[in-house]
Amino acid sequence: MSGAIDYLPLTRWFKHYHRDDFASDLVAGIVVGILLIPQGMAYAFLAGLPPQYGLYCAIVPLFIYALLGSSRSLAVGPVAITSLMVGSTIADTSASGLADPATIAVNLSLLVGLIMLILRALQLGSIVNFMSHSVISGFTSAAALLIAVSQLRHLTGIDIPNGGFITDSFGYILTHISELNSVTLLLGILGVLTLWIVKEKLVVLLKNTSLPHWLVQPICRAGPMFAMIIGITLVAMFGLNQNQHVAIVGAIPEGLPSISTFNIDLALWQTLMTPALLIALIGFLESVSVGTTLASRDRERIEPNKELIALGAANLGAAFSGTYPVAGGFGRSMVNYASGARTTIASVISALMVALTVSFFTPLFFYLPKAILGAVIIMAVLPLINIRAFTDSWKFNKADALTLLSTFVFVLVLGVELGILSGIAISFLLLLYRSSQPHIAIVGRVGNSPHFRNIDRHEVTTDKHILAIRVDESLYFANTRFVEDFIRTQCTCHREVTHVVILCNAVNFIDASALESLENLTAQLASEGITLHLAEVKGPVMDKLKDTHFLQQLSPGQVFFTADDAMCALEKRSARI
Amino acid sequence: MSGAIDYLPLTRWFKHYHRDDFASDLVAGIVVGILLIPQGMAYAFLAGLPPQYGLYCAIVPLFIYALLGSSRSLAVGPVAITSLMVGSTIADTSASGLADPATIAVNLSLLVGLIMLILRALQLGSIVNFMSHSVISGFTSAAALLIAVSQLRHLTGIDIPNGGFITDSFGYILTHISELNSVTLLLGILGVLTLWIVKEKLVVLLKNTSLPHWLVQPICRAGPMFAMIIGITLVAMFGLNQNQHVAIVGAIPEGLPSISTFNIDLALWQTLMTPALLIALIGFLESVSVGTTLASRDRERIEPNKELIALGAANLGAAFSGTYPVAGGFGRSMVNYASGARTTIASVISALMVALTVSFFTPLFFYLPKAILGAVIIMAVLPLINIRAFTDSWKFNKADALTLLSTFVFVLVLGVELGILSGIAISFLLLLYRSSQPHIAIVGRVGNSPHFRNIDRHEVTTDKHILAIRVDESLYFANTRFVEDFIRTQCTCHREVTHVVILCNAVNFIDASALESLENLTAQLASEGITLHLAEVKGPVMDKLKDTHFLQQLSPGQVFFTADDAMCALEKRSARI
Repeated sequence: MSGAIDYLPLTRWFKHYHRDDFASDLVAGIVVGILLIPQGMAYAFLAGLPPQYGLYCAIVPLFIYALLGSSRSLAVGPVAITSLMVGSTIADTSASGLADPATIAVNLSLLVGLIMLILRALQLGSIVNFMSHSVISGFTSAAALLIAVSQLRHLTGIDIPNGGFITDSFGYILTHISELNSVTLLLGILGVLTLWIVKEKLVVLLKNTSLPHWLVQPICRAGPMFAMIIGITLVAMFGLNQNQHVAIVGAIPEGLPSISTFNIDLALWQTLMTPALLIALIGFLESVSVGTTLASRDRERIEPNKELIALGAANLGAAFSGTYPVAGGFGRSMVNYASGARTTIASVISALMVALTVSFFTPLFFYLPKAILGAVIIMAVLPLINIRAFTDSWKFNKADALTLLSTFVFVLVLGVELGILSGIAISFLLLLYRSSQPHIAIVGRVGNSPHFRNIDRHEVTTDKHILAIRVDESLYFANTRFVEDFIRTQCTCHREVTHVVILCNAVNFIDASALESLENLTAQLASEGITLHLAEVKGPVMDKLKDTHFLQQLSPGQVFFTADDAMCALEKRSARI
Repeated sequence: MSGAIDYLPLTRWFKHYHRDDFASDLVAGIVVGILLIPQGMAYAFLAGLPPQYGLYCAIVPLFIYALLGSSRSLAVGPVAITSLMVGSTIADTSASGLADPATIAVNLSLLVGLIMLILRALQLGSIVNFMSHSVISGFTSAAALLIAVSQLRHLTGIDIPNGGFITDSFGYILTHISELNSVTLLLGILGVLTLWIVKEKLVVLLKNTSLPHWLVQPICRAGPMFAMIIGITLVAMFGLNQNQHVAIVGAIPEGLPSISTFNIDLALWQTLMTPALLIALIGFLESVSVGTTLASRDRERIEPNKELIALGAANLGAAFSGTYPVAGGFGRSMVNYASGARTTIASVISALMVALTVSFFTPLFFYLPKAILGAVIIMAVLPLINIRAFTDSWKFNKADALTLLSTFVFVLVLGVELGILSGIAISFLLLLYRSSQPHIAIVGRVGNSPHFRNIDRHEVTTDKHILAIRVDESLYFANTRFVEDFIRTQCTCHREVTHVVILCNAVNFIDASALESLENLTAQLASEGITLHLAEVKGPVMDKLKDTHFLQQLSPGQVFFTADDAMCALEKRSARI
């Protein structure tokens, strides 16, 4: 039992839990709850599901995460990008007639949860590190753009068809401008304005008043709630849904989600496997990065392994309460933290608010115009479109910028799933390409010191009989011919050379292809009267080389401990000649 | 014009061409020709084509290669592994009803030729380096095994169905043992014995006689020709094709190949693109490695770029003379070299021999039993199954051994095309995996020297306030979290540490993900009163870092020139405290 207590972070936090902490958690929980209700319904639309699904995402999974999660302020629930991924999976899969959207949603949650737990069991959580910063950045910007554009349908009232490139949507709007519902558009613009004013202006205004902080916080975060109230009031008051054909949310079933059961459908699971894996990885990655950022502000750390379990269990919770996959979202977590959440009790409060809402208050949302939900989504995702990430990385590393840009383009052109996979493939290929043409420096002695540096960058002295080169890369199949060619060319250009020394301080491993290449090179050079030597070989590399014939074959070439040792010994020899 | 003369290696060789050279080329050409005729017909069967196609492969492409090739002794023509790849492509593609085998064959040659020329134009010849030694080794062994097993059909006379796993073939033989044609089997065994005796025993015997070398050479290489003569004689004499139902080659159309014309069929080209790319890469790689091996024995070098052009043109030649793709084969090139080929004139001789054969002598092969061709193929590919390659690489590098083994298994299970692609993918993933968990050493000073080495491997002294670590890998997305975690853990374990120095002599580049990770780490450590420093940063890496905010953010941390500078400066500071 004490093991379980040690294991659950919440029990540890409870040891020092005071009334102040609860007050703080309460405020944060309410603030996030106020945000969750409109966002939940909006993101459900994004996922191609009825609005209650987004609310269900914010009940059971939150309780489970509150119990198991290692981050104090991560706000788990429906998330924009995951919702988009679920939406595209549902659109693809339901088109094939394999299952209906709701079945696809719960099966996705089940698979996402299982994948996370399996990754934890196999200690493979670090697999997320294979998605580079640039891939994630390009993916996020493109996904946010896709999401924003997808909402034009709700903002204009024009029934823009799904699929196609984003410019197609704009083209469709222009050719079908006559179908524009101007009242819907006005409601949407009103929604956007409300959100903008509350977020940007009201904060400044209220901070200058004497209102207490615990009241200012909820008001400033309630933009989506205000927009909803305004929208509902206007539609209901003027009957805009009837006389102006404004699209509304309509009837939402009342009551808590029931427990779902599953038919094991292997054909369906096979189709959903890749999207589920990507949703799991992206969801896990987003949660961990947000969690890490927030924890480090309090000089704490989150434990990625515990997060895999907590998020995996939360997704199983989503599956069994009949809804789609959840993750820790960036926006709401920031709000949760800023509103003073001290433990995951804040999430429990938010979940209770949502549960109350679905139990009793869904009729209130009957007249909610979809245009308002569209406005909520657009304002939530616009900050994710990050152009500076591209310009910054262009300055630092062209390969990163290229990865970012191509992931961005591929996601827009090929869709989220293929797009991110292509981005990952490109980041791998660029990495291989870069290491296939390693930087090789010819080095010389710095003054009388034992240090050797690039002859092109430093004032150094060299011996014309000795060619000392430093290969700035491990030696392996993709670059072995490049290195061999470099050395052969240098030996052809410098006819006086009788000794070649390869400084291996940047050679972190040597694979079988490279070993064979070194053997060939040794033989080739020997036939020209040139002896090959190695120096500064690292322990792990030397351990491997010891068991091979290469060292015997190298003789009379030697493996020197340091570059200095090598040069002193060889300079003496060549002086003697 | 002088450009063209410089360009064509043959014209250079002609400057010093003597009568002796021609005599030598003549013998080698005849020896290879004697080998080419049976092998050509046998490999055509492997490719799923009538026997004359293999002979056509040995006429026009050889003339073209003789003119353009940079290797003196590479023997271009039909090759076992390429033939197998063509065969599997033809089987897959003709099953879909897209085109007949002959059309597929010429279109493949056309694509292979074009791909090679395009790779040359784009300077992408080095793409072959991405196929590691282990992938090629596993692929070759598996392909050879597949080829050998596929010949059981001809050796037993049992009509084993194509496809399925190799064990299926043995199972089929056991369940259909009653269909075994024992005369066919005996002919096959006779063929194998003839080949073995000529290759292994006759050589030793003849070397001890007084026969001149130029006569011994052709006799020892004529095993396949002897086997053919024996087979043809026996079948014709006893009418085995009639009364024992021994399968024979039958009528081969007489005359030189006619010039083919092409219908551009984009649907077909799309299907053939991946196989053509793989055939081009494997063919190019095999040719270049054989060519390099042979050239280095004469202290010469071949030029991969010229080889791409020569092989590309040779394959276009194959396309326009209506046959399937060619490459430089291992076996015949070795024979060509050993028989004394001095220039590509030897290939011209071989091509003339084959041309004479198809023009006048094809009726001689009417009674040739297929079992003999099966025996020729089996004896040609058995040496390619290389088990020692696995045991050797297991000793040196487990990742290489794993790549080799999995490529081998994947080729057997998934077929040649998917198999080699999986092998390449695995070699990439293992590479990434290895660099995602880099070796990190905590280092200390060796005696009073300016050298720093791993504290676990060497007698070194350290300062308890300074943690100096050497990361044996470039810092990039896949390993940045690993490195960050290592440093944080070390700082937690060693509470006295106030300075962390990362020695970057093995850090060959830093990508955007790693830069952000370093920034986070600097801030995190600073908040704990620890200063981060870098040392031994390489020129190219420092150039990149200079333009970033990181260096300002690092302050008061410094970038030291050498590890020694860093430690001297920091030891003084911590002594002062």
